[in-house]
Amino acid sequence: MSHETTPSPFAPASLPQVPVVKGVRLAAVAAGLRYKGRKDLTLAVVDEGAVAGGVLTKSKTCSAPVLWCREQLGHGRARAIVVNAGNANAFTGKRGVDAVRITAEAAAEAVGCAPEEVFVASTGVIGEPMDVSGSSDLLTGLTGKLDATAWHDAATAIMTTDTFPKLASRTVELDGETVTIAGIAKGSGMIAPDMATMLSFIFTDAAIAQPLLQSITSEVADKTFNCITVDSDTSTSDTVLVLATGQAGNAALTDATDPTAAAFCDALNDVMLDLAQQIVKDGEGLTKFVTINVTGAENDAAAHRIAMAMGNSPLLKTAIAGEDANWGRVVMAVGKAGEAADRDRLAISFGPHLLAEDGARRPDYSEETVAQYMKNAEIEITVDVGIASGRATIWTCDLTHGYISINADYRS
Amino acid sequence: MSHETTPSPFAPASLPQVPVVKGVRLAAVAAGLRYKGRKDLTLAVVDEGAVAGGVLTKSKTCSAPVLWCREQLGHGRARAIVVNAGNANAFTGKRGVDAVRITAEAAAEAVGCAPEEVFVASTGVIGEPMDVSGSSDLLTGLTGKLDATAWHDAATAIMTTDTFPKLASRTVELDGETVTIAGIAKGSGMIAPDMATMLSFIFTDAAIAQPLLQSITSEVADKTFNCITVDSDTSTSDTVLVLATGQAGNAALTDATDPTAAAFCDALNDVMLDLAQQIVKDGEGLTKFVTINVTGAENDAAAHRIAMAMGNSPLLKTAIAGEDANWGRVVMAVGKAGEAADRDRLAISFGPHLLAEDGARRPDYSEETVAQYMKNAEIEITVDVGIASGRATIWTCDLTHGYISINADYRS
Repeated sequence: MSHETTPSPFAPASLPQVPVVKGVRLAAVAAGLRYKGRKDLTLAVVDEGAVAGGVLTKSKTCSAPVLWCREQLGHGRARAIVVNAGNANAFTGKRGVDAVRITAEAAAEAVGCAPEEVFVASTGVIGEPMDVSGSSDLLTGLTGKLDATAWHDAATAIMTTDTFPKLASRTVELDGETVTIAGIAKGSGMIAPDMATMLSFIFTDAAIAQPLLQSITSEVADKTFNCITVDSDTSTSDTVLVLATGQAGNAALTDATDPTAAAFCDALNDVMLDLAQQIVKDGEGLTKFVTINVTGAENDAAAHRIAMAMGNSPLLKTAIAGEDANWGRVVMAVGKAGEAADRDRLAISFGPHLLAEDGARRPDYSEETVAQYMKNAEIEITVDVGIASGRATIWTCDLTHGYISINADYRS
Repeated sequence: MSHETTPSPFAPASLPQVPVVKGVRLAAVAAGLRYKGRKDLTLAVVDEGAVAGGVLTKSKTCSAPVLWCREQLGHGRARAIVVNAGNANAFTGKRGVDAVRITAEAAAEAVGCAPEEVFVASTGVIGEPMDVSGSSDLLTGLTGKLDATAWHDAATAIMTTDTFPKLASRTVELDGETVTIAGIAKGSGMIAPDMATMLSFIFTDAAIAQPLLQSITSEVADKTFNCITVDSDTSTSDTVLVLATGQAGNAALTDATDPTAAAFCDALNDVMLDLAQQIVKDGEGLTKFVTINVTGAENDAAAHRIAMAMGNSPLLKTAIAGEDANWGRVVMAVGKAGEAADRDRLAISFGPHLLAEDGARRPDYSEETVAQYMKNAEIEITVDVGIASGRATIWTCDLTHGYISINADYRS
């Protein structure tokens, strides 16, 4: 990471305050695996009795830590998460698998739990063997520094090309008890989660049965992290974990149809959407944050695919970077998505401006008005494809010289 | 097109000489639809008795000329092709459909044939209504200038963001007669043909039955134009037409299993591959021409999809631009393709250098050697995914600042 990091124009002026989540403590340290002079190894510990839900990348070349987490989600008991930044431990063969086990065993020893209760995540360069010889000492050291308020430290230590730490939290009343949900995330490039996401770790003190936590996590990830794209490239390491300590005092949630579960689900959705949008707002090289709405599609899945075709189109993304209301490229992207669209009933809006309807430009189209709209930092594009009532919304960013600069020399 | 056009580093020092194809004449003129001071309207006329085969974009938002060509390929009789550059006549509603008919009728009148024997193609900006009021005069004027040697003129007049004209020809002996195949193509961005391609017009004097010409055209397009990508964005206007005048004197080809048909097919393949590779070599902003081979896939279609996932990965393409042998991004792209791949049997070569095998970096990997290889203008990447024997090759280019500069202000 030799390039200079210019902060995203969407970097927050100050980081959000994140409350304590009962039963959760964190700490980070500089392990020196790749970065100099910054913390890059994070340990989160939850009290005994916590459960975990999660979603993981569907990449066919997923990393060793992803395979490990998938295995542990089978039982869903959790005591710790270990995260290192700088090395993805992906495509590292048997040595990579061993590195995960060594890490989990070292953390288990330090925390006092079973290795299978330790979740492991790695992010950074793919294909470099990872040196874990110092794990035991580092993790033992970290257990002495665990702190229930160390959110900023943890969010910063998991960053790679990120230009700002990503944090979000919500509280929700369940059975008269205040339940807290707090999470951190990282991600800036190689962002096109496919039924999964980049790294995100979310903690709650809600009491909730593990099977329900797992199903809610999957459902909410589909509506949040799976609706963002920076560059269409799906990572080998995408991981979302939600850990619930059960210490809030609410009656344990077990039934998805229970209104209390719905309230928890809504609050979790808020946290995950907030984190997902922060990842896009730190998209490599971005200057614009873009919301894409597709309506009128054959069904919601078709709408999502059309929206993603738009969000992943280099031509549409460069047009937005150039503040060019190039809706011809919207037409192109809708066409290439492969889903049903009625060319002669297409309607396209940029923000509040309806540019085209019934498959052609509106007679009163004003290039000047829309050009003015394109100067905004946040752009919204809405397309109705004129078939049925399927709809979807996704979030993406523009494609700029900054992206090229960052990625043409990331590794060297 | 306000930006300065820097010629592609792969632009040929001199244009290839293209021989006369018996029964074919061409001419071009400046129609002033969008460009100033250059020819942008091309007419190709073939003698009576010619037949046409073709493949057209599968975009759901295809242009009005594509719909027209699809209809005429039903009978496959051809007398003329009219091509305008600067306006794609796509997403122009009923007015666009009318513009095609007016153009075909004007050409038919000028040439002396039925409008249904006139193929029409348009390339350029999407969504602008096209003014065809001058078509009749322009096309009548062009019929007076038709010339059997005007290949360079025609190839230049169909360009948009292209930095060089694309021409190719081959001759093949069939039944002791010399058969000539000659073609032109345009394309530089919005290149990710999906069972079709950008504009390409190929002419031959071979005698060949229309159904066989159609099937050979489709088959060869699948192995050539459908194996290239510049930016993953599929055009609304992709069109390949092959016109055969039947004047070479060979016994008419009717049977695909005939060895003479195979010889013709090979020669046509050579011409179409040459043109397809020239389109990539003029990819917007490119500095590297990249060949991607995938072997060991479940089948050839799976291999093609994996190769395309690599060829369309912004991260891999920017790494190549940065002369970084970032094979981690190869692993990522293989993983996101969604096709079967055995992570622990992957092998990756850059040129002659085998970097990784059995799912991990080779112990003798030399970063320096491979870094030296990456300085070449032509890069070859080969991946074996370790499943079965499916294979595919595609051609693409890198993703550079040039692409961003060209596309962030193309329309304005």
